[in-house]
Amino acid sequence: MLSPLFSLDQFRAQLAETPGVDAQAETAAAERNGQLTKPPGSLGRLEDLAIWYSSWRGNPRPTISAPQVIIFAGNHGVVAQGVSAFPGEVTAQMVGNFQNGGAAINQLSKLAGARLDVHSLDLDRPTKDFTKDAAMSEEELLAALQTGWNAVDPQADLLVVGEMGIGNTTPAAALACALFGGEAADWTGRGTGVDDAGLAIKTRVVAEGVALHDDHITDGIEALRRLGGREIAAMAGAMVAARMLRIPVILDGFICCAAAACLMKTHPDALDHAVAGHQSAEAAHAALLKELGKPPFLSLDLRLGEGSGAALAIQIVRGAIACHSGMATFAEAGVADG
Amino acid sequence: MLSPLFSLDQFRAQLAETPGVDAQAETAAAERNGQLTKPPGSLGRLEDLAIWYSSWRGNPRPTISAPQVIIFAGNHGVVAQGVSAFPGEVTAQMVGNFQNGGAAINQLSKLAGARLDVHSLDLDRPTKDFTKDAAMSEEELLAALQTGWNAVDPQADLLVVGEMGIGNTTPAAALACALFGGEAADWTGRGTGVDDAGLAIKTRVVAEGVALHDDHITDGIEALRRLGGREIAAMAGAMVAARMLRIPVILDGFICCAAAACLMKTHPDALDHAVAGHQSAEAAHAALLKELGKPPFLSLDLRLGEGSGAALAIQIVRGAIACHSGMATFAEAGVADG
Repeated sequence: MLSPLFSLDQFRAQLAETPGVDAQAETAAAERNGQLTKPPGSLGRLEDLAIWYSSWRGNPRPTISAPQVIIFAGNHGVVAQGVSAFPGEVTAQMVGNFQNGGAAINQLSKLAGARLDVHSLDLDRPTKDFTKDAAMSEEELLAALQTGWNAVDPQADLLVVGEMGIGNTTPAAALACALFGGEAADWTGRGTGVDDAGLAIKTRVVAEGVALHDDHITDGIEALRRLGGREIAAMAGAMVAARMLRIPVILDGFICCAAAACLMKTHPDALDHAVAGHQSAEAAHAALLKELGKPPFLSLDLRLGEGSGAALAIQIVRGAIACHSGMATFAEAGVADG
Repeated sequence: MLSPLFSLDQFRAQLAETPGVDAQAETAAAERNGQLTKPPGSLGRLEDLAIWYSSWRGNPRPTISAPQVIIFAGNHGVVAQGVSAFPGEVTAQMVGNFQNGGAAINQLSKLAGARLDVHSLDLDRPTKDFTKDAAMSEEELLAALQTGWNAVDPQADLLVVGEMGIGNTTPAAALACALFGGEAADWTGRGTGVDDAGLAIKTRVVAEGVALHDDHITDGIEALRRLGGREIAAMAGAMVAARMLRIPVILDGFICCAAAACLMKTHPDALDHAVAGHQSAEAAHAALLKELGKPPFLSLDLRLGEGSGAALAIQIVRGAIACHSGMATFAEAGVADG
């Protein structure tokens, strides 16, 4: 078990002291990869993925038997401005749907053999409208980080963090804009289906929020407090907890990557234990993945959230590890190696 | 059970009379898709994939419980010219590896919950060198098609056909060049790892083969006989058998797609029951997929063959169907639909 978080500064300090890969396991995994019954490099990105996973697990021939998917749900003050095609009540309704097993993420988690946990963060208390105030107080941010921090199963061997929060592509776009620069319009998109008028509102809201807070943003954590949301903070907390526990993470879509960006902008190595599961249809996700330096494994035009793209990508990681750990070597199989 | 094939002309006739989709199931599946608890279109390509699969299975809410992977293995006379980085004996050695469970496709089939069958086609009797003669006689081609035709389990609900055959990117390139035109060099690549000298030989061999046979190629089946190989023909036979049985097919890499191209060039609708599982690292595969009109689901730089990319893509089809058939509707879940 991880010790609880005491302060935002302690969380920042944790980020600077997280563990790295097991270099010995990495070398041994790369050596094993070179001996497997296939032409060198012929499994392409699966080979790098398997070595990367092995290096984080400290095991040159690992298995994946306990993936975990966690969904965090939160509500957003900016929704009152008309940034979403859906009303805020849908957040709680979809949480009910997750709990009853009816959502896409339930099916994809089950298919991946993953445990699914759902955490609602004060749905009846949306964050403040960030065009007027910081979205969260320091205490509220710490509590949300803590929710994510506590949610990770120490026995998990692969983690997906997903989200549900009507309107949350707006804070995600504001975070990306504040952290990486550019115009608000570079980072806003149609989310789950906003029309032209809604998109114009969204872009104005993001521009106003960034203008209000920009001078006060000292690092990714402060950006997260001013422009983020509870579920976005919880995702960040869970990603850091996973790092402490050496659990590799698959990043999901635009909102998950905005949470990840807050960590990377606080400490540049913070995402070394994470890969990008997919590139979503949300217009700015490709640019955000580029900023994170993470090429996606899938690109299937998903734009649902809930961790859905990353949960689908669990199968790719599983495939990589199944080959890496299950295949025979040339010597074992009596096959000539060219 | 399907009746056996009697002649190449009967096979051609079958291709012209294959069943199409179940339009009623297609409509019902599309209707169901519109009622599921997600913003419209937010599952992107998974939605189209689920409707397509449902339409072929004649069931608006299908399941996938019996995927089948079949590997066909063959040897090639052109290998004597030095077109591969591996000696021809490796084909039989790898068949042994498949039978012992040690290859990549064993791990990926197991992960996908798929039955794996392996068929060797006269490994001690390579096809003729197509720069000198037709690769196969009519009898040999018919026998190879029949092997594929018989190999499909009528109870399967999803099919992957893969191959093993040292040197078989060379006949695949010759087929693509003969069927779609262009220069030999447009269609040749490094296969499983040939060097510059080997690539130059390969390109010359393809050019010579196409020049020798081009005037006699009346359709895709005749191209298959003159430039193909036994495992390539068996893949084609299995794909048509799957069509007769309404079993959707996931295409694999360059060689599988060359087999598919022979069918499409014989009858334009022959591949309507097939999707492209992945785009491989073999240089010309992207161009071949474009000719087939099949956008790939994965692009992970695989270049192994064995059906490996398509077997990995089984998970994508499974994910699409898990969501489509398992999710709650807005009405069932009590969620507001925007």
